[in-house]
Amino acid sequence: MGKIVTLGEVMMRLSTNPGERLAHAQQFDVCYGGGEANVAISLANYGHEVVFASKVPNNALGQSVKKFLNSYGVSTTNLLFGGKRLGLYYMEAGVAKRSADVIYDRLGSSFAAITEIEWDLEALFEGVDVFHISGITSALSKEWQKRTIDLIKFAKNTGVKISFDINYRSKLWSLEEAQETIRKILPYVDYCSAGELDARYLLNIPKCSENKGIKNEMIYYYQEMQGMFPNIEVFYSTKRAIYSVTENDLTGNIWMDKKYYESDCHHINPIVDRIGGGDAFSGGVLHGLLCQNDPQTIINFATAASALKHTVLGDCNQFSVSEVNDFLDSGSGKIKR
Amino acid sequence: MGKIVTLGEVMMRLSTNPGERLAHAQQFDVCYGGGEANVAISLANYGHEVVFASKVPNNALGQSVKKFLNSYGVSTTNLLFGGKRLGLYYMEAGVAKRSADVIYDRLGSSFAAITEIEWDLEALFEGVDVFHISGITSALSKEWQKRTIDLIKFAKNTGVKISFDINYRSKLWSLEEAQETIRKILPYVDYCSAGELDARYLLNIPKCSENKGIKNEMIYYYQEMQGMFPNIEVFYSTKRAIYSVTENDLTGNIWMDKKYYESDCHHINPIVDRIGGGDAFSGGVLHGLLCQNDPQTIINFATAASALKHTVLGDCNQFSVSEVNDFLDSGSGKIKR
Amino acid sequence: MGKIVTLGEVMMRLSTNPGERLAHAQQFDVCYGGGEANVAISLANYGHEVVFASKVPNNALGQSVKKFLNSYGVSTTNLLFGGKRLGLYYMEAGVAKRSADVIYDRLGSSFAAITEIEWDLEALFEGVDVFHISGITSALSKEWQKRTIDLIKFAKNTGVKISFDINYRSKLWSLEEAQETIRKILPYVDYCSAGELDARYLLNIPKCSENKGIKNEMIYYYQEMQGMFPNIEVFYSTKRAIYSVTENDLTGNIWMDKKYYESDCHHINPIVDRIGGGDAFSGGVLHGLLCQNDPQTIINFATAASALKHTVLGDCNQFSVSEVNDFLDSGSGKIKR
Amino acid sequence: MGKIVTLGEVMMRLSTNPGERLAHAQQFDVCYGGGEANVAISLANYGHEVVFASKVPNNALGQSVKKFLNSYGVSTTNLLFGGKRLGLYYMEAGVAKRSADVIYDRLGSSFAAITEIEWDLEALFEGVDVFHISGITSALSKEWQKRTIDLIKFAKNTGVKISFDINYRSKLWSLEEAQETIRKILPYVDYCSAGELDARYLLNIPKCSENKGIKNEMIYYYQEMQGMFPNIEVFYSTKRAIYSVTENDLTGNIWMDKKYYESDCHHINPIVDRIGGGDAFSGGVLHGLLCQNDPQTIINFATAASALKHTVLGDCNQFSVSEVNDFLDSGSGKIKR
Amino acid sequence: MGKIVTLGEVMMRLSTNPGERLAHAQQFDVCYGGGEANVAISLANYGHEVVFASKVPNNALGQSVKKFLNSYGVSTTNLLFGGKRLGLYYMEAGVAKRSADVIYDRLGSSFAAITEIEWDLEALFEGVDVFHISGITSALSKEWQKRTIDLIKFAKNTGVKISFDINYRSKLWSLEEAQETIRKILPYVDYCSAGELDARYLLNIPKCSENKGIKNEMIYYYQEMQGMFPNIEVFYSTKRAIYSVTENDLTGNIWMDKKYYESDCHHINPIVDRIGGGDAFSGGVLHGLLCQNDPQTIINFATAASALKHTVLGDCNQFSVSEVNDFLDSGSGKIKR
Amino acid sequence: MGKIVTLGEVMMRLSTNPGERLAHAQQFDVCYGGGEANVAISLANYGHEVVFASKVPNNALGQSVKKFLNSYGVSTTNLLFGGKRLGLYYMEAGVAKRSADVIYDRLGSSFAAITEIEWDLEALFEGVDVFHISGITSALSKEWQKRTIDLIKFAKNTGVKISFDINYRSKLWSLEEAQETIRKILPYVDYCSAGELDARYLLNIPKCSENKGIKNEMIYYYQEMQGMFPNIEVFYSTKRAIYSVTENDLTGNIWMDKKYYESDCHHINPIVDRIGGGDAFSGGVLHGLLCQNDPQTIINFATAASALKHTVLGDCNQFSVSEVNDFLDSGSGKIKR
Repeated sequence: MGKIVTLGEVMMRLSTNPGERLAHAQQFDVCYGGGEANVAISLANYGHEVVFASKVPNNALGQSVKKFLNSYGVSTTNLLFGGKRLGLYYMEAGVAKRSADVIYDRLGSSFAAITEIEWDLEALFEGVDVFHISGITSALSKEWQKRTIDLIKFAKNTGVKISFDINYRSKLWSLEEAQETIRKILPYVDYCSAGELDARYLLNIPKCSENKGIKNEMIYYYQEMQGMFPNIEVFYSTKRAIYSVTENDLTGNIWMDKKYYESDCHHINPIVDRIGGGDAFSGGVLHGLLCQNDPQTIINFATAASALKHTVLGDCNQFSVSEVNDFLDSGSGKIKR
Repeated sequence: MGKIVTLGEVMMRLSTNPGERLAHAQQFDVCYGGGEANVAISLANYGHEVVFASKVPNNALGQSVKKFLNSYGVSTTNLLFGGKRLGLYYMEAGVAKRSADVIYDRLGSSFAAITEIEWDLEALFEGVDVFHISGITSALSKEWQKRTIDLIKFAKNTGVKISFDINYRSKLWSLEEAQETIRKILPYVDYCSAGELDARYLLNIPKCSENKGIKNEMIYYYQEMQGMFPNIEVFYSTKRAIYSVTENDLTGNIWMDKKYYESDCHHINPIVDRIGGGDAFSGGVLHGLLCQNDPQTIINFATAASALKHTVLGDCNQFSVSEVNDFLDSGSGKIKR
Repeated sequence: MGKIVTLGEVMMRLSTNPGERLAHAQQFDVCYGGGEANVAISLANYGHEVVFASKVPNNALGQSVKKFLNSYGVSTTNLLFGGKRLGLYYMEAGVAKRSADVIYDRLGSSFAAITEIEWDLEALFEGVDVFHISGITSALSKEWQKRTIDLIKFAKNTGVKISFDINYRSKLWSLEEAQETIRKILPYVDYCSAGELDARYLLNIPKCSENKGIKNEMIYYYQEMQGMFPNIEVFYSTKRAIYSVTENDLTGNIWMDKKYYESDCHHINPIVDRIGGGDAFSGGVLHGLLCQNDPQTIINFATAASALKHTVLGDCNQFSVSEVNDFLDSGSGKIKR
Repeated sequence: MGKIVTLGEVMMRLSTNPGERLAHAQQFDVCYGGGEANVAISLANYGHEVVFASKVPNNALGQSVKKFLNSYGVSTTNLLFGGKRLGLYYMEAGVAKRSADVIYDRLGSSFAAITEIEWDLEALFEGVDVFHISGITSALSKEWQKRTIDLIKFAKNTGVKISFDINYRSKLWSLEEAQETIRKILPYVDYCSAGELDARYLLNIPKCSENKGIKNEMIYYYQEMQGMFPNIEVFYSTKRAIYSVTENDLTGNIWMDKKYYESDCHHINPIVDRIGGGDAFSGGVLHGLLCQNDPQTIINFATAASALKHTVLGDCNQFSVSEVNDFLDSGSGKIKR
Repeated sequence: MGKIVTLGEVMMRLSTNPGERLAHAQQFDVCYGGGEANVAISLANYGHEVVFASKVPNNALGQSVKKFLNSYGVSTTNLLFGGKRLGLYYMEAGVAKRSADVIYDRLGSSFAAITEIEWDLEALFEGVDVFHISGITSALSKEWQKRTIDLIKFAKNTGVKISFDINYRSKLWSLEEAQETIRKILPYVDYCSAGELDARYLLNIPKCSENKGIKNEMIYYYQEMQGMFPNIEVFYSTKRAIYSVTENDLTGNIWMDKKYYESDCHHINPIVDRIGGGDAFSGGVLHGLLCQNDPQTIINFATAASALKHTVLGDCNQFSVSEVNDFLDSGSGKIKR
Repeated sequence: MGKIVTLGEVMMRLSTNPGERLAHAQQFDVCYGGGEANVAISLANYGHEVVFASKVPNNALGQSVKKFLNSYGVSTTNLLFGGKRLGLYYMEAGVAKRSADVIYDRLGSSFAAITEIEWDLEALFEGVDVFHISGITSALSKEWQKRTIDLIKFAKNTGVKISFDINYRSKLWSLEEAQETIRKILPYVDYCSAGELDARYLLNIPKCSENKGIKNEMIYYYQEMQGMFPNIEVFYSTKRAIYSVTENDLTGNIWMDKKYYESDCHHINPIVDRIGGGDAFSGGVLHGLLCQNDPQTIINFATAASALKHTVLGDCNQFSVSEVNDFLDSGSGKIKR
């Protein structure tokens, strides 16, 4: 089992039940999540030693985040307390073809408003195998763009593998800003979650012109990205066909040792909660890499982990290695009795 | 934006959760609705000035109806207080192929038991563009059959456009009664919601004999109805393919300027609540007519509005013009973030 | 209408909502059920006189079981009070392809721990038409294997028809144990719920070698079983195609008078609660036999009853004869209003 | 144990949670009750054979009433199905000094609208010890005033003891109407629930002039009533001091063999649900009379039963004889473990 | 009936159930409130014409605020849409002697971050009788301190009466800041909510030295305040004895025409929700002033309105004039039936 | 801060809401607790390093226990997985004078059925300051009586202080058994929770004959117990006056350095959940001892901690040191804002 550090913002999620609109809600369901926190929990579920570094306000809500992470066995020794508020987001559940709607409310959050790196980085990265961070963190502010690169460089210098999830969100920063920062980050990255849209819009790789079927197109994009960043050992992403909010097809793929591997397609219907599906996938890939599994095993496991995430409420994966493997072996919808 | 009056009964709905039977329920969800009230709310959501005329008991339940309408910005200046009880209906949610079941309990309601027209009609219709009423109101009693015609005539004489939704319910009156009343009403109507079954069973139009495909059949029925009632400017209706309680296909069509227009087909799965889907459609058509949109725009908007209604709990539509248009442009089931 | 006795364990079920894992639950839904109790309730719903014999602890939970059975009109004169605890099981609802998971907790239950037959059998079986029991009861212990046979022999000697549902559960006993007991029981049985897997694994009937399509295969298995146990008048079972936890196809079939009959296929989507679907089917078959309906009517009714059970929460069927027949006639997913 | 018949209307109760107003409720709790039904359930809990005669609509709500009564072991062989609707009432829970508020909605209910006695009275009263009915039934209509007397006379002639609870409700009939009917009924009554207000306002007994303390005042009223109706064997009533909706003192008293007996005072805080407290008291008195307990035992038991009723939600008592006696012996608020 | 404008921030309240801590909550109850909004709703309930001026974000949460105000009939024509977020606060319900705990999260809210007065003041105050505002608004920022005074001056110049609730909150500003601003405001005020602590700490009036009993002490403070601000026509405040979170005594008093009037003491147990109790009191006083009631009637009504507010969930009063008067007449905790 | 080990059974609690009876419940609230686990959580809340040793089944319920303990920061390195089931208990909430009722269902639980000590005791007790265990553990079985003594001896020999809570439960073992075991344990104990009833019934100390007031009586009992067990450094207990299930007075006292100290009396009304109140008290005392606070500080803190526990749902204390101290300083029932 490995030792992993992830760092990012963790938010409260306030959500409505399906069929209820935000403007009519008299109750919200409360949970906690964030890209890097979700990956931390996945890896803790799989038995790895995981530290999640972040900052939350020194009040009951900050305590709630701590309890939440501890309940999954994630170390909160680097969860700092201070600042003014916990970032949050509202989610109106989607139904049928009506999309879910998210209202971010993270202005001035304890994490976003940090003015300097407050963690003891030497202690944080000591003995760590992998440092995972996402593009969302850079997107928080100009300061966080610089700070993300500093953190990655520091970790890299300590001999830690860098895992990066591009995770572009147009609501948070422009393509131009993202391009500039992402390109500064990628030369330090070892494992990278990046798909076709990332290749085309953030790295300006031209659209695959020949019509060779979807599989070959992804090979083309991975080859092009690999050419630009030969340092990156592993690329991975998912393809998702969306029939409705609650019915999707999901296929995972990975580019490793310059070869392309693809999982079976998972038909997921109904989807209970899609938020965090990508983080569960990243967590599954990192688990496979830390266990030095073969690429086909890695991508099968990671995609199954992501499919399972879609069947539970909340941002984070709640399944162990054996549960993911059981699902891979016999996921059929039968009753186990 | 226009000014609209709708008039009818508004009831309390007491409903169970899916999977629970009425005879076992320990809790009911409470909401309020009725055909004309639902149309009123749709139009208020779209920014029109809307007055809903009705009568409710002078108790907490009557107040609840008032609060409900006001929360959507519908004027309740013509919501009278008095009489003995609020009509209500129980709804056992359906599941899969098991149909939802409705028990009406509207005997002796404040609205049904009115003995004369209690609204100041001159004031009510002053400056009004459209008066909307449905066949359900006539179905309440012999008295209401006569009264409906009186109301329509009065409004017509004041220069108000008459919108009428046939909305035949076999539980409330016989075909013979309905035929007689409906035929007295239609000569005063400008906009009419009427489909194939209305044409055949209420207006005795013979079944379309040639097998020309569904689209042409509707043209035939509209042409025949138009022939009978040349005064009617617009006919409209929906076609619904029912796969299960929670999976339907919905297509809207409209006959306007003696031409036929049809929306795309909306596959709705799952349906959260179908009650009020037809009223949301009527509300959408009236909005388009009030805005003088072209027929294709009108039918696209109205059908999308109806499809959206199926995704929220409660009898009434809860979407604004921009939300309906967003859904038309990009309804895909993605998360907006 | 007939008089029926069923005998078995009744348990409390503690279940989570879909999307929630057992390990995170802060609330459980509570209901009661068990194979023989579920059949008892089905038959009481259909208007038969039904006695359910069992044993529950003399505390509030035992009282709760009594109230539950009485509410459906099942006689509890043979529900004994005593012993140490009420058996229970936890159910984590499945979602999409993730199976539901059941944790049994019936160790030392009042029923399982009985040391001798405590009911007055003469009184119990007096005037009774059918005695129904399942293989789950035999699976509880060595003592219960012997006791089951004793009960069946006693009933048989009193002139009561024996209905037996093999209901093999690998979590409760081994194939070898089950084979031995089942083979001792079947010579006394009149009506038997047994499918292909029972034929092959419990009765060692070789797999149907010729590829004649599914219908003929079942005929082969019924013929073989009939050959082994000429005393059995009726065999019946269902075929289930599982697309996901909430989407199944269900077809029922029956072997009677040495002929094979099959129901239409019911596409059930979504399934609200599958537990007890087989018991609803058995209840439907027994109802048809007691009413001396023809085989096709029996299998149509029983399969519809089972399909309906999938649309309600809880282990037991909650539909009357007329509701099942309505569903058979017009199950379409429309609103009845 | 005795055999008892009670007859009256049973209604659905729709209630809000404390702190929530009717006009804002989005959910109602559902339960069932009515004076005579509540007494029936109390006596069934105590092990007596009880028949409740009433009429409910032949729909899911009528079925719900049947299930409810059966779950307590009350016989529903004389629960008729038919008529137009189930009577209901809404209850806004009170808080502190703000009173609970009740809106009756029983206009045209299946029971109230009965046009003739529909039960087979010979069969109904055969072998019955006590027939219990209340003044609420007479209050429903002129027809019910006459019918109540007919029912009482019939029962009396069959040798059944008559139990009558005056239960005057000013919302249902005037003092004059009540006086006239009650005075016609009382000459047939054996056991009568009547308090000071009944004595003064319905029987015109002058207010006790001498100031002898509360105990003696009740003796005076009982003596006066006894003088007017020497046929009545037992009078009983409670005294209630109301500090707030949720804090009351309750003392029961009984006049039997021309002597006065009084229970201890029960301080009840908090009261969970006061509705049905009087019926639980009547049920307790009837139980004691049927068991031929001594008057002090009867009044102690009945008052404790009523106090316990205040601690559970719903109209009806849910405690057994041993639970009431345990409470009498050791009601202290400790945890039993 | 009068016409009133109130202006201030309206926030979302997220609260836990009693007995549940914020750090463990999986659900929050959602409601909306704010001092000036609460007063607006009270006055609308009493039948006055009320405009609430504020600013909320142009998203579903802003819409929710609008719906909430409209449901009570408060005009939202001056509810502006824009800015970045809706201010909110979390409330952990208190129990017994454990206080409720509030976490404000209003940093950067749409209302607090206004940079200039965005309402059309001439239109806003046209024909208005009273403008009500509280010290909380001034406490939001230096800018709001100045802006509050500008608003008050503008209204005053238009001939509008100024109602001001000092409402000092130590978490929002220091005593020094408050003193400076409050003293600038009071010379323009006509009706002022101010108690002993306001007199002593904000206006530096020395503690009443003679021990004359509570009533005279308040007279002393009112006299002193009146001396400082002869322009103020009415002072009012409450005295609260706190036995626990859910048990308080509440007495209201008013200083008018240089005389002191006091209500009866209301013992409130249990308190369902104390938030907004002061605003309900202010609303009651303003109602009395607008109706030109005599001082004793005013203070009785206002204190009863405040006591009633304590019995309902949510920040705002939900009672009509007749309900408050009923409570004054007969508040006793009885069931009305 | 200290290091503490506690060891015992942890159970699932299934409870009803106040006003609802077990026999009618359709939902249970789920939480986890047990005497030693509750003390562990209290001490972890106060910042100590705490290990809880126990055994739970290797299923989702065992995982749930682990998550629960981890969320409070309690180490689960000595939480073993295995055995057949998780012990549980049902709790019907009490109301007013009606006591709460508990049904234990711990027969054959993973912890109770342990056949030998399965923890590595050397590792478990290394560097530990205090080992806490209660009489409930000994009460589970003869084997556990012996095993408890072995564990205590082992810990004692390693230099660990022994904390013992007598916690006699008559439902689990007889007085004679308890006397014998407790007397074998006490010679090894350093800190002992024991009150008057323990002194009189388990240690046969004669009732204090002289009537010197409650305070002196406890001194007498402590003196007597101290005489019998001079090794015990600290005795402590609470006095509880029970007015109803939800209204108690609570006073703590401690005997330390042969002197008696007593806290203020806490009037607790309403009590939300009394279960675990004693464990919170023990946790508070141990915290004070570990911090070497003076006796008066210790008893004040511990009693406040216990009083606070009564205000939250669930078996365990959820308050930090500063929250307990805040409550001591200003517990008044005000809103903090």
